[in-house]
Amino acid sequence: MDQENKVANEEGDIECYYGKDMEERIYSQPLLTKRHNTTSQIAIVGANACPVESLDYEHFMYIVDIYKIRENLANIVALSKLFGFEIIGIRNAGVRMGLAVTTALVLMHVLEELAIFGSILCVSAGFVVGKEGPMVHTGACIASLIGQGGSRKYHLTWRWLRYFKNDRDRRDLITCGAAAGVASAFRAPVGGVLFALEEAASWWRSALLWRTFFTTAVVAIVLRAFIQLCSTGTCGLFGEGGLIMYDVSAAKVAYSVPDILAVILLGVIGGIFGSLYNYLVDKVLRTYSIINEKGPAVKILLVVTISLLTSICSYGLPWFATCIPCPIDTTESCPNTDLSGNYKSFQCPPNHYNDLASLFLNTNDDAIRNLLSTSTTKEFHISSLFIFFIAIYCLGVITYGIAIPSGLFIPVILAGAGYGRLIGRLFDPITKLDVGLFALLGAASFLGGTMRMTVSLCVILLELTNDLLLLPLVMLVLLISKTVGDMFNHGVYDQIVKLKGLPYMEAHAEPYMKHLVARDVVSGPLITFSGVEKVGNILHALKTTGHNGFPVIDEPPFADAPELCGLVLRSHLLVLLKGKIFSRDRVLSGDEVVHRISKFDFAKAGSGKGVKLEDLDIKDEEMDMYVDLHPITNTSPYTVVETMSLAKAAVLFRQLGLRHMCVVPKSQGRPPIVGILTRHDFLPEHILGLYPHIRLRK
Amino acid sequence: MDQENKVANEEGDIECYYGKDMEERIYSQPLLTKRHNTTSQIAIVGANACPVESLDYEHFMYIVDIYKIRENLANIVALSKLFGFEIIGIRNAGVRMGLAVTTALVLMHVLEELAIFGSILCVSAGFVVGKEGPMVHTGACIASLIGQGGSRKYHLTWRWLRYFKNDRDRRDLITCGAAAGVASAFRAPVGGVLFALEEAASWWRSALLWRTFFTTAVVAIVLRAFIQLCSTGTCGLFGEGGLIMYDVSAAKVAYSVPDILAVILLGVIGGIFGSLYNYLVDKVLRTYSIINEKGPAVKILLVVTISLLTSICSYGLPWFATCIPCPIDTTESCPNTDLSGNYKSFQCPPNHYNDLASLFLNTNDDAIRNLLSTSTTKEFHISSLFIFFIAIYCLGVITYGIAIPSGLFIPVILAGAGYGRLIGRLFDPITKLDVGLFALLGAASFLGGTMRMTVSLCVILLELTNDLLLLPLVMLVLLISKTVGDMFNHGVYDQIVKLKGLPYMEAHAEPYMKHLVARDVVSGPLITFSGVEKVGNILHALKTTGHNGFPVIDEPPFADAPELCGLVLRSHLLVLLKGKIFSRDRVLSGDEVVHRISKFDFAKAGSGKGVKLEDLDIKDEEMDMYVDLHPITNTSPYTVVETMSLAKAAVLFRQLGLRHMCVVPKSQGRPPIVGILTRHDFLPEHILGLYPHIRLRK
Repeated sequence: MDQENKVANEEGDIECYYGKDMEERIYSQPLLTKRHNTTSQIAIVGANACPVESLDYEHFMYIVDIYKIRENLANIVALSKLFGFEIIGIRNAGVRMGLAVTTALVLMHVLEELAIFGSILCVSAGFVVGKEGPMVHTGACIASLIGQGGSRKYHLTWRWLRYFKNDRDRRDLITCGAAAGVASAFRAPVGGVLFALEEAASWWRSALLWRTFFTTAVVAIVLRAFIQLCSTGTCGLFGEGGLIMYDVSAAKVAYSVPDILAVILLGVIGGIFGSLYNYLVDKVLRTYSIINEKGPAVKILLVVTISLLTSICSYGLPWFATCIPCPIDTTESCPNTDLSGNYKSFQCPPNHYNDLASLFLNTNDDAIRNLLSTSTTKEFHISSLFIFFIAIYCLGVITYGIAIPSGLFIPVILAGAGYGRLIGRLFDPITKLDVGLFALLGAASFLGGTMRMTVSLCVILLELTNDLLLLPLVMLVLLISKTVGDMFNHGVYDQIVKLKGLPYMEAHAEPYMKHLVARDVVSGPLITFSGVEKVGNILHALKTTGHNGFPVIDEPPFADAPELCGLVLRSHLLVLLKGKIFSRDRVLSGDEVVHRISKFDFAKAGSGKGVKLEDLDIKDEEMDMYVDLHPITNTSPYTVVETMSLAKAAVLFRQLGLRHMCVVPKSQGRPPIVGILTRHDFLPEHILGLYPHIRLRK
Repeated sequence: MDQENKVANEEGDIECYYGKDMEERIYSQPLLTKRHNTTSQIAIVGANACPVESLDYEHFMYIVDIYKIRENLANIVALSKLFGFEIIGIRNAGVRMGLAVTTALVLMHVLEELAIFGSILCVSAGFVVGKEGPMVHTGACIASLIGQGGSRKYHLTWRWLRYFKNDRDRRDLITCGAAAGVASAFRAPVGGVLFALEEAASWWRSALLWRTFFTTAVVAIVLRAFIQLCSTGTCGLFGEGGLIMYDVSAAKVAYSVPDILAVILLGVIGGIFGSLYNYLVDKVLRTYSIINEKGPAVKILLVVTISLLTSICSYGLPWFATCIPCPIDTTESCPNTDLSGNYKSFQCPPNHYNDLASLFLNTNDDAIRNLLSTSTTKEFHISSLFIFFIAIYCLGVITYGIAIPSGLFIPVILAGAGYGRLIGRLFDPITKLDVGLFALLGAASFLGGTMRMTVSLCVILLELTNDLLLLPLVMLVLLISKTVGDMFNHGVYDQIVKLKGLPYMEAHAEPYMKHLVARDVVSGPLITFSGVEKVGNILHALKTTGHNGFPVIDEPPFADAPELCGLVLRSHLLVLLKGKIFSRDRVLSGDEVVHRISKFDFAKAGSGKGVKLEDLDIKDEEMDMYVDLHPITNTSPYTVVETMSLAKAAVLFRQLGLRHMCVVPKSQGRPPIVGILTRHDFLPEHILGLYPHIRLRK
C-alpha cells in the first residue's frame, strides 16, 4: 500500500494512480486524473460523491450543545438553489448557435471553480450536453463551500459556518446540494430527493431524508415564485412550460396487450443501446484523457473539433430532410422562424416545414418537447427520426468528456426520445399508444439502460411530464431496460467512478472476501505512538509516512501492560504540535490542552486549509520533549479481531462510513494492535494484488 | 436483565413486560400485549416491523451457490399484491351500513390470521377506519409466510421457499410486502416504495430499493389490468376513479402571497391537531387495553358501542343540516339516492340535497372525493364542515384500537380534508385557491402532523390526486406540520411501537450514552461453552437460561490460552443435540457434522417451528459425552472493546442490524469475553434502570 497516496486520497485529491506508463494501461486501468483536469468532474458528484467518510469525530471536541443550532443551519444549504437558479434565466436568454465555444473555453479556465458559467455558455453554444450535471455539481460545490466554512480565497467566511466543520455535516450538506441541483435542473423536487438517495449518498439516514426534502421544498417554492415572476416573458426562455417541463398529460393513455408487447420490446432494445452507450462513453473518456494530457492547446482543439462536428450535423443534416406541408389543425405557428418552438422553416417553401431542423436547430429542451408532442403522429418522418437518433447518440457519446462541463441526462433523454418516437412510428399500425408517449417511454428505457436507477428516474420522469396514468408502463420499461443493461455492464456513474480510480467501496462485500480474514489484508509497517510521546518521534513519523491515523498505545507506567489507548489523527497531531504544549518529563498534561487550544482549532478544516507540516516550527531542543496525546486520542476506535471474516469487516467499515479500523489480536501476550485498515485495504485491486489466485478459488 | 424475556422477544413474541400490576402503570409504561391480542397489530408492521435483526448468518451453512436463485425468487413476493388486490373488489361490492359488525367480529376471531377479511367487513360496516393498515399487514404477512417457507398448518409449503430461510431475506420480503400493501391500497406504486423506505424498513440497502420497486411495479401493472377489466362496472365500486383515486387536477392552481400565508396557517394548525390526535390515540389505546383484558364479551361490547356511536353520528348528525338547493351547473345527478356519489338527498325535498349526508352516509372514499371536489365552493356549509370535522376527528380517535383491523391513513385524510375545506371556506374572501385544494392541503397537514413522514406522504398524495402543480404547496404544508408536530410528541407509529413495548432501537444514540462505555451495560451472569463441551452442560444452560447466543471459548489443548472462538445460537445447538453426534472423549469431530446433518436443518425455521427443548431425547449416559461445537460456531462475531463508547456501540449494533455483540476485555490476562450485548441492553429502560441519574448529568 502506497502510504503517500493514501493521505492524498483522504484529503480529496485523486492523483493516486498516476504514473508514466499511463498510455499503455489506459484502457484497462483506472484513469489518472489530476486536480486541474476538468474532464467531467461532475460525474464524481453525480455518483456517490463521498464514498466513505469518517464518523470518528465523536471525541472531546464534539460539542453537544451546538447540535441544535447546527440542525437548523444545515438547511441553509437550501440557498444553493438560488444560485443554480438565476442561472437558468441567464442561460436560456443567450441561446445562440455557433462557435462561441472558444470564448466559453477561455472563460471557463478563468472561472475554473465556477463550472456553472462554463455550462451556461456551453449549453448556449448548442452542444449535445445536459445542464443537470453542472447544476448538481454547483449545488454540491456551494454546499461543500458552506461545509468548510466559506472560502477564504474569495473572502466569503462566516463564523457560524464552523459548526459544519465535521465530516458528517459536510457530507450531508453535499448530498442536499446535489438534491437541490437535480430539483432545480428538472423542476422535480421529489425526484431530487430520490436522486440524492439512490445515486449520490453512499450512507443514508432518516435525518438526511428530511433535510434533503426541506432543501428541495425550498427549491420548489423559489422556483415557483420565479416562474410566476417571469411569466411575462422577461427572463428569456426561462419559465417555459411552468413547473412541468414536458407536459404530455394531454395524451389519452389507453393501452392493451399488443401495446405492452411493443413497450417490452422498446425496453429491451433501450437497455441494449443504453449499455452500449456506457461502453462507448467509457472508451471515449479514456481516449480523451490521453488527448487532454497533451496540453491545453490540444484540449481546445478537441473542443473546437467536436463543436464543428456538432455544427455540421445541426446545419448539414436538415438538408437531407424533405419539406413537409404544415398541418392544418395546429395551434402553433407553422412554419416558424423563431429561436425555439416547433415546425422550423429552414430552407422550405411557405407553408412547409423541415422536420429535422425542428429537432436540430433548437434548444435541447425544445427538441425534447417536440419529440414528446402528442397527437402529431406524422410530424416527423421515420427517416428523419432515424437520422436524428443516430446523430444525437454519437454526438452525445463524443461530447461527454471534452473539456466543458456537461451532464448526461439531457443527451440520453434526447436520444431516447428520438428512438422511442421512431419505434412508435414503426409500430404505428398495431398500437393505439400515441407516438409522444412512445417517445417518453423510449427516453425512460435509455435512462434506465445507462443510469440504472429506478425509483428516482421514475419520479423525475413523472415530474417532467405530468402523466401519472403512464406510471405502470414507465415502471415496466425502467425495470426491463435496467435488467437488460445490468447483463452487460455497470451503470454509467459506477463506470466513471471506477474510471477515475476513486477509492469507492461497494455496498456489498465481494464473494472472495469470505475466504479471507481481516489480518490477511493488513499491510505496510505499523507505526504506533505512546500515550506520552517524544515530539521528535511524532515529527519523524509525520514526515516519513503518509498515514492519516496512528494508534496510541498506553505503556507502563500509564498502564499495567501495553494496551490500545485509541487513535490519533494526523490533522489533530499537527494542531497539537503547533500549540507546543510540551513538557520535559514523561507526564500527563491534564486539562492544559483544553485551556490552551480552542476546540475549534481541531474542527475539520477546509480542503488544503488545515495546519501543514511545513507550518510547524519545532526547535531542536523541543525535539526531545514529550507531548501528551491522551487529550486528542479517540479512545473508542472501531475494532475488529484479526480473525474476523474480511467480508464482515468490509460491511462494518462501509456501513458505518469509517476511515480507519483497528485490527486487534485474538490471542494474548502480543502487541495490542495488529494493524490499521483503511478503505484502500478493502479495494479489489489491493486484495487481488496480495492474493491473485483467490478469485479462482471462488 | 430478565433472560427469560429475552428469548421470548427474540422469537418474535411480545410478552416481555407483562405483569400483574398492569393497570396501575398503564398510562406510563409500555403496554403489555399478548400474542392473541388483536388490537391493531397492524401498527407493528406499519411502523418499523423488524427493528433489529441478525445478519449473523454468514457461517458454514451459508450457501453462496444458491444466492442467484434466491435473488430472483425474492421477487415472487410480488404475488402478494394479487391477494390484497382481489379484496378491494369484494370489499367495495359489499358496502352496507349498519351493525354487520358483530358478524364481522365473530368471523374475525375465526380467521384471526387473515386480518384482511375482518378489514373488508369492518370497512363495509362503515367504521371510520382505513384499509391501508390491513392491506400493509396482509402484504407483510404473506411475505412473512413465504419467508418461513409456507405454512405447515395450512399445508402450503414449497420446497424452494427454504432459500428464504434466513433473517435478511425474510426481512426484505416483509418490507416488499408492506410496500405492495400501500401500493395497492392507494394505487400509489412509487408511494409504496417510499413508504417502505421511510417507515417500514429500519435497515436499508440499495438492493432493497430495487426489489420494492419491482414489487410495486408488478402491483401497478396488475392493478391497471384489473381496472381495465372492471371498467364495465362488474366489480362493484372497485376501479372507480381509475388509477387516480381523488383527481383534483381539474382545478386551476394559481396562488400568491396571501394564499401562501393561509396555507402556512393551515399547516401550523394541522400540525397541532395532528399531534393532539397522536396524544389522544395513545391514551385511548391504553384505556382500551384495560377494557379488552376483561374478556372477549367486553371486547365485543366495546366494538358494538363504537359501532352504535358511529351509526348515531352518521344517521343523526345530518338532521342538523339544512337542505341546500341543487346547483344548476353540476354534471352529477342531484339529489342522489345511490349508495355512493355526491349530493345525497336524505330527508330533503326534491332538487335539494343534504350536505352532511353526502359526507356521512357514504363510503370513506367517496366522502374524501366529495371534500376534494373542486369548483364547488359553496357545496358544503361552514357549519356542516365543522360538525363533520369534529365528529370524524373523535370517531377516528376512538375507533382505532378496538378489536377490528384498521388503518390510520383514511381517517386522518378524512378529518384533514374536512378541516382543510373548512379553513378554505373561512379564508374564501382573501384567497383565490380552490376550496378543494384547501381540502387536499388540510389532509396533507393532518398526515404530516400525525405520521411525520415527508417524502412518502408527498408522493402518495401526488399519486392520489394527480396534481403536480400543487407540489410546492404540499411540500410546504408537510414541512410545517411535521415541524410543529415534532415540538409536541413523536409520530403515531413511533408512539404505538413504544406503547406495545417492542424493543425498538432508535437510529441515533441517546445523548447520555456518550458518558457510558459498553462494559457499563453488560448484565446478567455470562454463560460460556468450551469448544468441545459436555452435553449435560449445554442442556443445563439451555434449560436454565433464555439466552439465544452463547460465546464459545477455546481452551487448552485446543488453544495456547483461553481465547474467544465465536458464538453459537440456541437454535443451532438444539439441531446439533438432536443430531446426537457425541463422542466419549474430548476430541474434535471434524467434518462429521456436515455429513450427518443437512445444511437446511440449520436454516432459520418459521416462528415456533424449529427444534424445541422438549423435542430432545437425551439419555442419561449421553449427558457425560462431549459434543464439538466448532462446526456450528460463528467464528466472526462482531465485537467491541469494553471501553468502547456506548453511543458508538449502539450505532454499530443498529447500523449492522445485529442480535448479539460480544464485549471483549481491553487488558490482557483476563477471560477472553466480558459479556454479550443484545438490543435490550441498549434500550433506555435498561440503561436508565442501571444508572437512574445519568440523564441529569447530561
